Amino acid sequence: MDEVVGGVNRTLCARASRVIPGGMWGHQNAARLPIGYPQYFSRGEGCRTWDVDGREYIDFMCGWGPNILGYGDPDVEAAADSQRSMGDCLNGPSERLVELAELIVDTIPHADWALFSKNGTDATTACLTIARAGTGRRKILVARGAYHGAVPWCSPSLLGVTAEDRAHLIYFDYNNIESLERAAEAARGDLAGILVSAFRHDIGRDHEMPLREFAQRARKLATEADAALIVDDVRAGFRLDLGGSWELVGVRPDLAAWSKAIANGHALAAVTGNDRFRDGASKIFTTGSFWTAAVSMAASVATLTKLKRIGAIAILQAMGQRLRDGLDAQSRKYGLPLRQTGPVQMPLLLFEHDEDRRIGNAFCLEALARGVYLHPTHTLFLSAAHTKADIDATLTATDEAFAAVCRM
Amino acid sequence: MDEVVGGVNRTLCARASRVIPGGMWGHQNAARLPIGYPQYFSRGEGCRTWDVDGREYIDFMCGWGPNILGYGDPDVEAAADSQRSMGDCLNGPSERLVELAELIVDTIPHADWALFSKNGTDATTACLTIARAGTGRRKILVARGAYHGAVPWCSPSLLGVTAEDRAHLIYFDYNNIESLERAAEAARGDLAGILVSAFRHDIGRDHEMPLREFAQRARKLATEADAALIVDDVRAGFRLDLGGSWELVGVRPDLAAWSKAIANGHALAAVTGNDRFRDGASKIFTTGSFWTAAVSMAASVATLTKLKRIGAIAILQAMGQRLRDGLDAQSRKYGLPLRQTGPVQMPLLLFEHDEDRRIGNAFCLEALARGVYLHPTHTLFLSAAHTKADIDATLTATDEAFAAVCRM
Repeated sequence: MDEVVGGVNRTLCARASRVIPGGMWGHQNAARLPIGYPQYFSRGEGCRTWDVDGREYIDFMCGWGPNILGYGDPDVEAAADSQRSMGDCLNGPSERLVELAELIVDTIPHADWALFSKNGTDATTACLTIARAGTGRRKILVARGAYHGAVPWCSPSLLGVTAEDRAHLIYFDYNNIESLERAAEAARGDLAGILVSAFRHDIGRDHEMPLREFAQRARKLATEADAALIVDDVRAGFRLDLGGSWELVGVRPDLAAWSKAIANGHALAAVTGNDRFRDGASKIFTTGSFWTAAVSMAASVATLTKLKRIGAIAILQAMGQRLRDGLDAQSRKYGLPLRQTGPVQMPLLLFEHDEDRRIGNAFCLEALARGVYLHPTHTLFLSAAHTKADIDATLTATDEAFAAVCRM
Repeated sequence: MDEVVGGVNRTLCARASRVIPGGMWGHQNAARLPIGYPQYFSRGEGCRTWDVDGREYIDFMCGWGPNILGYGDPDVEAAADSQRSMGDCLNGPSERLVELAELIVDTIPHADWALFSKNGTDATTACLTIARAGTGRRKILVARGAYHGAVPWCSPSLLGVTAEDRAHLIYFDYNNIESLERAAEAARGDLAGILVSAFRHDIGRDHEMPLREFAQRARKLATEADAALIVDDVRAGFRLDLGGSWELVGVRPDLAAWSKAIANGHALAAVTGNDRFRDGASKIFTTGSFWTAAVSMAASVATLTKLKRIGAIAILQAMGQRLRDGLDAQSRKYGLPLRQTGPVQMPLLLFEHDEDRRIGNAFCLEALARGVYLHPTHTLFLSAAHTKADIDATLTATDEAFAAVCRM
């Protein structure tokens, strides 16, 4: 029988600490969360997930984004099963590759072509390489503090990273036109690309939608320099606009990186691009052992098809708005000011006067204890499996969580 | 009805050329093979694969390595199915992560811990970052011409790559002690690691097993500098020795990179390391959206367990030897000198006096036409699903292929 203390399965954690450095690597390390969050999960279904100790949660992380239709969506899994019975990792791609690339080119206005890989980082890295190959230049402008992956050129940690890994990055501040112009000026004559997140979703700080004038200026600077405007749509992709998140501000990139929600939890990433960068994309060497695996592509075709068919974004928006409105009312009722930023389908919850995260951590732990899985500093994710009843059950739990925090 | 000309499905290729740069990216682009090789596959089962036009092949690529137990191994797929019914991509790892890390630490003598990811390139890149984090130094020694992945620091193409991406690599020649010593001398005071392939398996040139003295010298140089000896076991892992390929020469690395065969076709990669580098591994930031996906880990546990249970390496060796002996006899019979290099379970076939690949390409095409899928310049892969009957059927086809080449 596993020992469970304060919500944490100590038996598994102790076993893990022997065979995994630090007990867990990366963003899923529960040590990055308030004490009491579970490290291990056993099951997911729809908008619900269960930890290894059998506790059930209404989930607002969707596996950190991917499960946009809910865990184990039956239509996606049926398509995946059907392909699996034929083959997955073969000597070359299956016909699913062509179907998926065609579907993506049909769906995403800027996309004349697509390439596939496994990680969001694969896609952002390939975008940089394609931008450099397509322009013969080196400099990439990138927003300070933005997350674009976890390899030396972009990792949030500098440990094990050399200065040269970032030699050709020039930084600007998201939504700040003047700083973007200064960065472009510094790259003059050597500008390969401008890399921007779909919206500003840095961890632990208020999210910001892209300003239309900022997006237009980025587009103009890239066009004038014949460089690539690159949108990193890994986190936001398919939740804001099926055609790409910057459709919302009427600006089309030359290249975009996608992953997370693209196949509803199956490992897949993509780069899309326009004809200006087709030649560069065709000449670089980018590949991986599992990048043409057919099951993930069948799952992606089914995911994108269903997102369109059910009008998923409208569902996400309606449920996200219902959650936001309910939390706003509770925040006022309890006099505990809450800042809800980012699009409603990808909200961030931060409390006022909470620099040390005491309030946010306590609120999330109280919600967790009542069966609602939130994250205190990271973007949350709605799925199309969240129903009104789920949101209302969530709000019942958060009402109690607000009350508990007020009693502290 | 798709148009098929000279063995190539032109309908799919024409569709692909519109939506995929160059028709296909990376190592699976059939344009890198003699004309007549299929680009698209529909099915795999055991040691057999079928292209989209229904032609069946006895396969010696195993999906470029991964399918070590054969395509769709029933034991592996049962374990994957069982996990899939619970959950795959959740908010954190499942218990399978701990089971797999424990199994790997039990199986691989140098491994005190393991980390998981998706691509071989993820694993080799993390090895470099861990070596740098663990030593506080920067230089990595790497063999000229070795393949360690497809991102800027290691891609076989320099297109889109900047000089700084490789600023801290110093090159040596595999199995050449003097050149290794020169490289170590050039890195003096700043040596983070020495990166070596399991054996020399560069594309298009005779494969070479590591010389014991070379391996021992690499170990000694790393130890003296308190740097990491890193074995890239991505391609060879689990086919030569379940404990790591350099067990064959009695040398243990500090870090190793794994992927391909680790989960019999499910997307997974791993870094293993010893306690010297546990701290560095625990402090770097490496992660990805799908890196804890539970189905691939369940598949890996089942794969490694079955490899041990059935004594897979002995099967691969016996079948590989049977193929090598048969091809040797045919080569002599037809007076067409064939160099078979690399371990028998991962052979490379190159013909003498064949700088322009005319003979090798023709031989492979003739074999292909007779239902045997070989590759003219890349390492081939045996699987535990190859039986004596499969090897004998292969040899019947290759006998005819030899005869056909002689008639040319």
